[in-house]
Amino acid sequence: MGTSAVTSSSSTNEFAFDSRAKLELPQKFTFAGIHCGIKKSKAADLAIFVSENPCAAAAVYTQNKFRATSIDRNAQITPSSNIRAIVVNSGNANACTGNQGVDNNLVMAETAAGKLSINADQVLTLSTGIIGEQLPINEIKNGIVLAIEASGSSDRHFGEAANAVMTSDQWPKKSSARRTINGQSFSIAACAKGAGMIGPNMATMLCVIATDIGIEASQAQPTLQRAVDQSFNRISVEGHTSTNDAVILLANSAASLNCDDAEISHEFEKCLSEICLKLAKKIPADGEGASHLISIQVVGADDLESADVIARQIASSALVKTAVAGNDPNWGRIVSAAGNAKATLDPKSCSLKINGHAIFVAGNPAEFDPTEVSQSMKANFETSIEITVGDGPATACHWTSDLTPEYVRFNSEYHT
Amino acid sequence: MGTSAVTSSSSTNEFAFDSRAKLELPQKFTFAGIHCGIKKSKAADLAIFVSENPCAAAAVYTQNKFRATSIDRNAQITPSSNIRAIVVNSGNANACTGNQGVDNNLVMAETAAGKLSINADQVLTLSTGIIGEQLPINEIKNGIVLAIEASGSSDRHFGEAANAVMTSDQWPKKSSARRTINGQSFSIAACAKGAGMIGPNMATMLCVIATDIGIEASQAQPTLQRAVDQSFNRISVEGHTSTNDAVILLANSAASLNCDDAEISHEFEKCLSEICLKLAKKIPADGEGASHLISIQVVGADDLESADVIARQIASSALVKTAVAGNDPNWGRIVSAAGNAKATLDPKSCSLKINGHAIFVAGNPAEFDPTEVSQSMKANFETSIEITVGDGPATACHWTSDLTPEYVRFNSEYHT
Repeated sequence: MGTSAVTSSSSTNEFAFDSRAKLELPQKFTFAGIHCGIKKSKAADLAIFVSENPCAAAAVYTQNKFRATSIDRNAQITPSSNIRAIVVNSGNANACTGNQGVDNNLVMAETAAGKLSINADQVLTLSTGIIGEQLPINEIKNGIVLAIEASGSSDRHFGEAANAVMTSDQWPKKSSARRTINGQSFSIAACAKGAGMIGPNMATMLCVIATDIGIEASQAQPTLQRAVDQSFNRISVEGHTSTNDAVILLANSAASLNCDDAEISHEFEKCLSEICLKLAKKIPADGEGASHLISIQVVGADDLESADVIARQIASSALVKTAVAGNDPNWGRIVSAAGNAKATLDPKSCSLKINGHAIFVAGNPAEFDPTEVSQSMKANFETSIEITVGDGPATACHWTSDLTPEYVRFNSEYHT
Repeated sequence: MGTSAVTSSSSTNEFAFDSRAKLELPQKFTFAGIHCGIKKSKAADLAIFVSENPCAAAAVYTQNKFRATSIDRNAQITPSSNIRAIVVNSGNANACTGNQGVDNNLVMAETAAGKLSINADQVLTLSTGIIGEQLPINEIKNGIVLAIEASGSSDRHFGEAANAVMTSDQWPKKSSARRTINGQSFSIAACAKGAGMIGPNMATMLCVIATDIGIEASQAQPTLQRAVDQSFNRISVEGHTSTNDAVILLANSAASLNCDDAEISHEFEKCLSEICLKLAKKIPADGEGASHLISIQVVGADDLESADVIARQIASSALVKTAVAGNDPNWGRIVSAAGNAKATLDPKSCSLKINGHAIFVAGNPAEFDPTEVSQSMKANFETSIEITVGDGPATACHWTSDLTPEYVRFNSEYHT
């Protein structure tokens, strides 16, 4: 892996380079990321996110029927108005691990609760990594205590937490923002991990979002769901929804702004949605072996569901993804994938643009210079596919990575 | 490509080696395959299948909304009791080619009809290859005349026709059988092409089946549909259903056996189903860059649809397919893919075998030797995945190819 995303395309991947930006961290949160001993490398594998105050917590979880034990437990707790911490381990998913896995997961929560002098049901847990192996629970117990002792509120602390949630990610994924309304401010900071097994409706991706705004859990839950539906549920790497996916939002009310005000609520949802979308796009951009981020925009569909189904069908086509990897404006594969979707689509009213070049117009091939389009694909990390499927009102976007020999080599050799 | 299917696994691919077996060809059919000038290589690119008698014709076509012009026209003609010939070109799909494509397709039928002194609507056409380019119609017209002049009823003639339908296939796919009932016989001979873009519910695969049995078109159509549902609709390479897929059956009544007899009809359907299944499995076995055929059997499902959905979900998982390519018994990816299917599934009653080795039993990892299972995967071209998902009565099978770096390299470079 290493730098394959950069070397297998002559373009630069702008999604990799904002991770050292100054962060806007929310008040009264502390963070840590350490190596506790799960990963054989010395890479960080345990993160903790702690709030001084009880938080409203909202969450969206994987729809896979083999849910990790951490997800099963969290789902019984959230939405909640009383969460204080999230413990995350990477390197081991604690999924398909039977009763011992359930016990180990509870020990994670209890250990953090003991050290923080709170109740275990004020702690949520997340795990990501290999399926079907038991956690090294003693190392994790020691690690949780050390992480809490090492935690702090600086950019470095948040950055170490972001590093510690990674598995096959090449770089950490962070985003933050501060918004000021009538002289008062709130902040949102979030980190995510992705890389492989990324599919619509959650995948092996985790995202932890911390904010100091005030919001009721009952309002936070639908707000987060809407933001996730337009971001993390619109990305894929290979279309697989994993056992462990979760997006969790903690809001600790440390700022003086509260979402019981409509203007503040609106501004918060807008800011949250932007952060989710920024982080979401970083995930296929860092897809295993990816040399392009592919953005797919469907316009002119009869309804949102049709637009979405067509976008997902194109995004999940190995033929489209390999063509983009080869900088090949192979429009036949794209329209054929669209025609393969279970949605209304009139071939005669279909048009297609790749990186803004008209390739197919009203059901007929257009005159275009394949070399020029190919060079544009080669020169840009992001390949834009815009397909018109009729004259309806609905549009949908989806983002995916291309499919390179490096992806396959990596996934043949990496035992998840 | 070349011999990658053989060299990237230490096993041998038994699906490649029966193509020189003696064929059981039906009476009063002639065949030809020639190079007419579509492919830049000198490879054969035009095939013809002609019956001396009018045939009952049944067909199953792609469900892609961008249907090739040949499929649109055929679908207006079949089922029919009056077909005499099928003309097939490879190297160009004549799909997304507008009115000129429609005209060219009609010229193919008219040219064959003129040379055979029959009506154009007694001729079906099939095309496969690149999308969106116009056919070199003059070369094809000349080629059709030459092919009819060169046609004959020998194994060599049938073999040349089977060669001429190939695109990125590494070897021709043929199967035939003769059955004798009370001293009378019928024969079925069929050839197929596949390789890339193979998905459930037809894909860029063509299959032409010729038989000398007597059968009404109204009976042939549901019989063929059932055989296809259990064979060609249960295979995938990368899950894409193309613009041009078709399976066509011609029955010319030259034998003295007729399907108006229940025993004969039963024997015919059984024989047809076996031939379809044999040919269908050859397609993912010859998937672009494939080093394994993967067979997936789901047992214990509540109903057929659930079994089928789970089998397809596993078959379409890039993570499962890359793991098999790496001879990695990565069961976490398999159960996670199953859990991802839109079907009822109780994780606690799930069990999994790979090549007969119990890997996961009643929701828990089993003790097994990963090296032994991996060696078994390496030693066999076919990897068998058997997953129990409950104690229901329904089972389903599906076949797919693994996903190798060669597949991706090939599909990044080959402009379909």
